[in-house]
Amino acid sequence: MNYRFYNARILTMINADILEGEVWVQNEKILYVGDGHDTDTVYEKLNLNSIIWDREIDCEGNLLLPGFKDAHTHSGMTLLRSYADDLPLHDWLTKQVFPIEARMDGEMIYHLTKLAVLEYLTSGITAIFDMYLTPDTIAKACVDMGMRCVQVSGMNGQENFGEALQKTEQCYLKYNNDDPLLSYFIGFHAEYTCSKELLESVAKLAHKYRAPVFTHLAETKSEVDGCKERYGMSPTKLFDSLGIFDYGGGGYHCVYLDEEDMEIFSKRGLSVVTNPGSNTKLASGIAPISDYLTRGINVAIGTDGPASNNCLDMFREMFLVTGLAKLREQDASAVDAWEVLKMATVNGAKAMNLPNADVLAEGKLADIVMIDLHQPNMQPINNIPKNLVYSGSKQNVKMTMIHGRILYENGRFSDSYDVEAIYRKANEIIDSLR
Amino acid sequence: MNYRFYNARILTMINADILEGEVWVQNEKILYVGDGHDTDTVYEKLNLNSIIWDREIDCEGNLLLPGFKDAHTHSGMTLLRSYADDLPLHDWLTKQVFPIEARMDGEMIYHLTKLAVLEYLTSGITAIFDMYLTPDTIAKACVDMGMRCVQVSGMNGQENFGEALQKTEQCYLKYNNDDPLLSYFIGFHAEYTCSKELLESVAKLAHKYRAPVFTHLAETKSEVDGCKERYGMSPTKLFDSLGIFDYGGGGYHCVYLDEEDMEIFSKRGLSVVTNPGSNTKLASGIAPISDYLTRGINVAIGTDGPASNNCLDMFREMFLVTGLAKLREQDASAVDAWEVLKMATVNGAKAMNLPNADVLAEGKLADIVMIDLHQPNMQPINNIPKNLVYSGSKQNVKMTMIHGRILYENGRFSDSYDVEAIYRKANEIIDSLR
Repeated sequence: MNYRFYNARILTMINADILEGEVWVQNEKILYVGDGHDTDTVYEKLNLNSIIWDREIDCEGNLLLPGFKDAHTHSGMTLLRSYADDLPLHDWLTKQVFPIEARMDGEMIYHLTKLAVLEYLTSGITAIFDMYLTPDTIAKACVDMGMRCVQVSGMNGQENFGEALQKTEQCYLKYNNDDPLLSYFIGFHAEYTCSKELLESVAKLAHKYRAPVFTHLAETKSEVDGCKERYGMSPTKLFDSLGIFDYGGGGYHCVYLDEEDMEIFSKRGLSVVTNPGSNTKLASGIAPISDYLTRGINVAIGTDGPASNNCLDMFREMFLVTGLAKLREQDASAVDAWEVLKMATVNGAKAMNLPNADVLAEGKLADIVMIDLHQPNMQPINNIPKNLVYSGSKQNVKMTMIHGRILYENGRFSDSYDVEAIYRKANEIIDSLR
Repeated sequence: MNYRFYNARILTMINADILEGEVWVQNEKILYVGDGHDTDTVYEKLNLNSIIWDREIDCEGNLLLPGFKDAHTHSGMTLLRSYADDLPLHDWLTKQVFPIEARMDGEMIYHLTKLAVLEYLTSGITAIFDMYLTPDTIAKACVDMGMRCVQVSGMNGQENFGEALQKTEQCYLKYNNDDPLLSYFIGFHAEYTCSKELLESVAKLAHKYRAPVFTHLAETKSEVDGCKERYGMSPTKLFDSLGIFDYGGGGYHCVYLDEEDMEIFSKRGLSVVTNPGSNTKLASGIAPISDYLTRGINVAIGTDGPASNNCLDMFREMFLVTGLAKLREQDASAVDAWEVLKMATVNGAKAMNLPNADVLAEGKLADIVMIDLHQPNMQPINNIPKNLVYSGSKQNVKMTMIHGRILYENGRFSDSYDVEAIYRKANEIIDSLR
């Protein structure tokens, strides 16, 4: 399908300028981003004399920007949204989450992932970094829905670790050479759920493929304290000492990195994926985002899973990233809106190794969101990036396009989905597991 | 107009039960809330044999609940949304806000208030507690838009205080006996912008009418410290010692109340109106909500004005109330979802003296919101109050009814508004004042 978006405001995320003009999409890629003047020359240059637009969309001055990257989530946990709230992380995980998860199968996770995808679309999220239990059915759900999905293995000590490693390697080889919507990272759940032997094997696997590794990292103070008791060092230092980060990667949450940890992050080019909604709701703490930015560490944003958040809403996360930094630093100028928008788009793409889905430019993948500026919370138009971060909400998402396909538009999902059937399935699954 | 809502889930806010049934509205009032069985008996009992429904609305299992009460706002400050961010409160107020406000006139505030009303409607807010500069044009804007508005005077030392007092008294008498959508409270801006003489006069006025008084209170630590330097006591203690709180009232923000202040709040039956979005964005701090609740203090929620927040979104505020409490207490069980929903509805109605607009019940005012549960962020339906507080967003507001009139439905505003003209006006006004 070929789309011409005209009469648009455009935030390419290459810089903070708002361009007025057009974006053209051919199949899965962006053909052109520009002011739309002298289109004959553009047609000629791009050899497009015979292009036929499937749709020409009048943006009515609304904003196009790159889709948001949700750089840490567990999509299948939609099941447990509002199921067990108001508990500290450890109790929540061991008493509520793990027992139910032990009874979830791949087919359930297929349906629950589809539910999550619907929610990502309402929030302008066009790619997810998903760690969950059944990679094959997660991959199928994302391909069936048209979602871009970077999976990461969540190996932990509950499984036979030989099998877990083998499965991770298989997935790594398969999903980095399968559907263009899919890719796969090596990862493990967390220090406190993995044996040292497993961690050493993870390092070997990372070395074999010269691959980055991601994990839950320094989410709570007790996690860091526990690791120091067990190993005499912080989890970051432990992983680094084992060679896990030799080819990059990073950590999810990263609420409690100390000075030495941050040095490792800088030196290895690791990414921090911050999850302020989850860290707030589970009372885990406030990450020192300003410290990370000062050191040039790549900071991306994730929602975490919907059981701990409880929603998949990049607008909430963006406000929290800057808001909590302001509270932590007692400084209203901490982490400004533009930095946050970069985290939600280009920095996420960097962490997730999606260099073709980071900005709006010719040749990039057409992962595009349209923001409705004809809404009261976007008016007057004093400053669009600040309006997005400080005032934006899901209600402003007018269109979500992934890989050149419009999957959500004007509050309606793609006709190819049976939305009510997805809701019904989710309710049936939780009813069957209660 | 007479409306029959059927096939609804209903959260009356009298208790946490979800009722399945119907809500009937006749003109501005609720006629009936119930399961909808044996309607003949209900018709007979209510003497409704001849009622003709103007609309019978199939709620499709969606949720009806009382509209949210925004218990502290400055609607006209829509003008300054994203105009001057990332500054601490004092600089923001004196260097950015006051100079522009000095040049705003009543007509401008009329239009800017209309813009704010559009935004309240998108967030399910059906009544506002508004402190701003030109009460007559604010009242006109709210009546023209159909918004329920409790105004409060914002007297301060910038004005001639004799005149300000006279104006407050006139408004108090006028707007408590004018349009049924309107009412009026005595209030002043804050200790740090008022002379002692003005504060004493406020107390006299409160005594004359046996009226409650509201003010910005203990918003920042420096405000409290400054007051202690000037008067040797906290602002709460100062106001109480002057008799300002003899007939009740309360404070906006209340981030820094100490033990003695809380005792005064309990003793006088004062309300805390918490504004977590604004307190976060201006780095003012986190209010000790759990302490207030433990002492039985009535806690309501406000957005504050859109220049400091920067949006008018009760869903963001609700998540922040509980989230920030959890962070402050380092306890994931602090301030649960049900407490927060009460704050956003019944507690707000109590603070604003709207006893007829607090819950869904026969004879109450028809200020009703419909929440779209057929959205991915509300599924599965494990727990509706928790879904609302932890996962809800403006995108879930399917209908907003005030005083029996549907003003927002399915993403569309009342046909009686010229929405684009309101946006245009707001942009023209800021352009003229830059």
